Amino acid sequence: MPDATARELGEFGLIARVTERLGGSAAVLVGPGDDAAVVAARDGRVVATTDVLVEGVHFRRDWSSAYDVGRKAAAASLADVAAMGGTATALLVGLAAPGDLPVSWAIALADGLRDESALVGAVVAGGDTVSSDRIVVSVSALGDLAGRSPVLRSGARAGDLVVLAGEVGRSAAGLALLQAGEREGPLVEAHRRPAPPYSLGPVLADLGATAMCDVSDGLLADLGHIASASGVAIVVGDVPLPDGVDLAQALTGGEDHALVACVPAGTELPDGVRVIGRVEPGSGVTAVGFDARTLGWEHFS
Amino acid sequence: MPDATARELGEFGLIARVTERLGGSAAVLVGPGDDAAVVAARDGRVVATTDVLVEGVHFRRDWSSAYDVGRKAAAASLADVAAMGGTATALLVGLAAPGDLPVSWAIALADGLRDESALVGAVVAGGDTVSSDRIVVSVSALGDLAGRSPVLRSGARAGDLVVLAGEVGRSAAGLALLQAGEREGPLVEAHRRPAPPYSLGPVLADLGATAMCDVSDGLLADLGHIASASGVAIVVGDVPLPDGVDLAQALTGGEDHALVACVPAGTELPDGVRVIGRVEPGSGVTAVGFDARTLGWEHFS
Repeated sequence: MPDATARELGEFGLIARVTERLGGSAAVLVGPGDDAAVVAARDGRVVATTDVLVEGVHFRRDWSSAYDVGRKAAAASLADVAAMGGTATALLVGLAAPGDLPVSWAIALADGLRDESALVGAVVAGGDTVSSDRIVVSVSALGDLAGRSPVLRSGARAGDLVVLAGEVGRSAAGLALLQAGEREGPLVEAHRRPAPPYSLGPVLADLGATAMCDVSDGLLADLGHIASASGVAIVVGDVPLPDGVDLAQALTGGEDHALVACVPAGTELPDGVRVIGRVEPGSGVTAVGFDARTLGWEHFS
Repeated sequence: MPDATARELGEFGLIARVTERLGGSAAVLVGPGDDAAVVAARDGRVVATTDVLVEGVHFRRDWSSAYDVGRKAAAASLADVAAMGGTATALLVGLAAPGDLPVSWAIALADGLRDESALVGAVVAGGDTVSSDRIVVSVSALGDLAGRSPVLRSGARAGDLVVLAGEVGRSAAGLALLQAGEREGPLVEAHRRPAPPYSLGPVLADLGATAMCDVSDGLLADLGHIASASGVAIVVGDVPLPDGVDLAQALTGGEDHALVACVPAGTELPDGVRVIGRVEPGSGVTAVGFDARTLGWEHFS
């Protein structure tokens, strides 16, 4: 069968084919194939998050390869772990897919999940495969804080600097190009495969970040979450615009999974992190020079 | 709005309404509302599993209430943790749902997840909500082994007894009744809301169970997984038939989430656990007195 379908291979055949693509790690004490995985949680706590990607909502099979969907699905959850100041150790993957799904698609998805996870040393430790008329990929990530306090959204204080690690707006700009008929180029690639600055999450935590989150709803919307949770105002004034990205895309585009954090004034910033604003008393988010009628992506809108 | 839709309330409004239904626990150090949860993992390891339920495949909204779907979705993952010998501490829930989903449905789902989790002391620690044309619920469960070795599928040895905790076939019998037009009765309720014997998982682990899994694919199919992973033969000869359940339903029906385990001969069994067979040298599963042309539920078939 050069490209059998999920139905032809059957659930257990599909799982076997996918599992053989995946590697192990020292942190995964029991991997795929049992009722549950067992993952090391060395400091007695585990960071845990889940994200769901739906075909037609978060990706299109004619716009993204299965490999890219795997990279992107993993990135969404891995970035959440980084935004707590942690390092991901393991993924659990739920795949709902039609019976006529080519097995090659599922295998490429697993390869993408594996390769994105490898960027932080994590592996796929388990999952579930069920039938559905539309592809839904759920990815739960587990992570290790290595003794750090988790960086919440609620700790920002007036006087802190607002800093950005990674780029914003490239995924939104790439989506706009795809919608306009483009199929190639760096922005289209950024939409297909975001590049979160995973390692800077723990680095910012170690530098004393008072609040942090990943940019998944849009920069202003996610800063709004921090402002609201912390009871502060945030003024954004110097957002870098990557090539081909306009200000609206940079301020409201999600899915790049950059990290935005608040750090005490005077913090010496590592490479890849720049100041984009400040925390003030008050409430809400103001972007200097931008008419923020829309504050990012919200589902069901 | 007596019953607003998800679209009317918006993603964040929906999350807020659902989150306020959920309680906390000492094991959940950071709960819903941040990038990720932080859950205690006291013995330095965490059991982790994920299950996906799809509308029209695993449940029908006209056959099961949202509350029952929540109970059932939680049960599938909580039983996996029990089958490793662990006790669940936290759930992560991914909900993909149409924009016209009544908010009351999502709230009742959350109530069901909460109440089923409460049976083992676990709570919902986080999740994700996205739009989709069909409801998909993914539930990841985290759990604590309390110092025990995880009970795998691969440890059964010739001479062990095969034991069953909980009942098998009631969910399948209930489904058959629903398909025949029945809408009430104990078997229909068993299909809507399985009752896994969670606490017997750690008990069997402490009694030295050599292999264990929950019955989600069907008794013969799941015993087949143990036989295959352990390199042994299993002979089943004394499967109890609950009222209204036929032998085929008991042997091949999944979704009751009973626990099946192998224990050393001579093990003194606790209440609620009975011997249904034995482990022998060889391979495969034999059910005495049954023509096993089908060995349980497989997706994509």
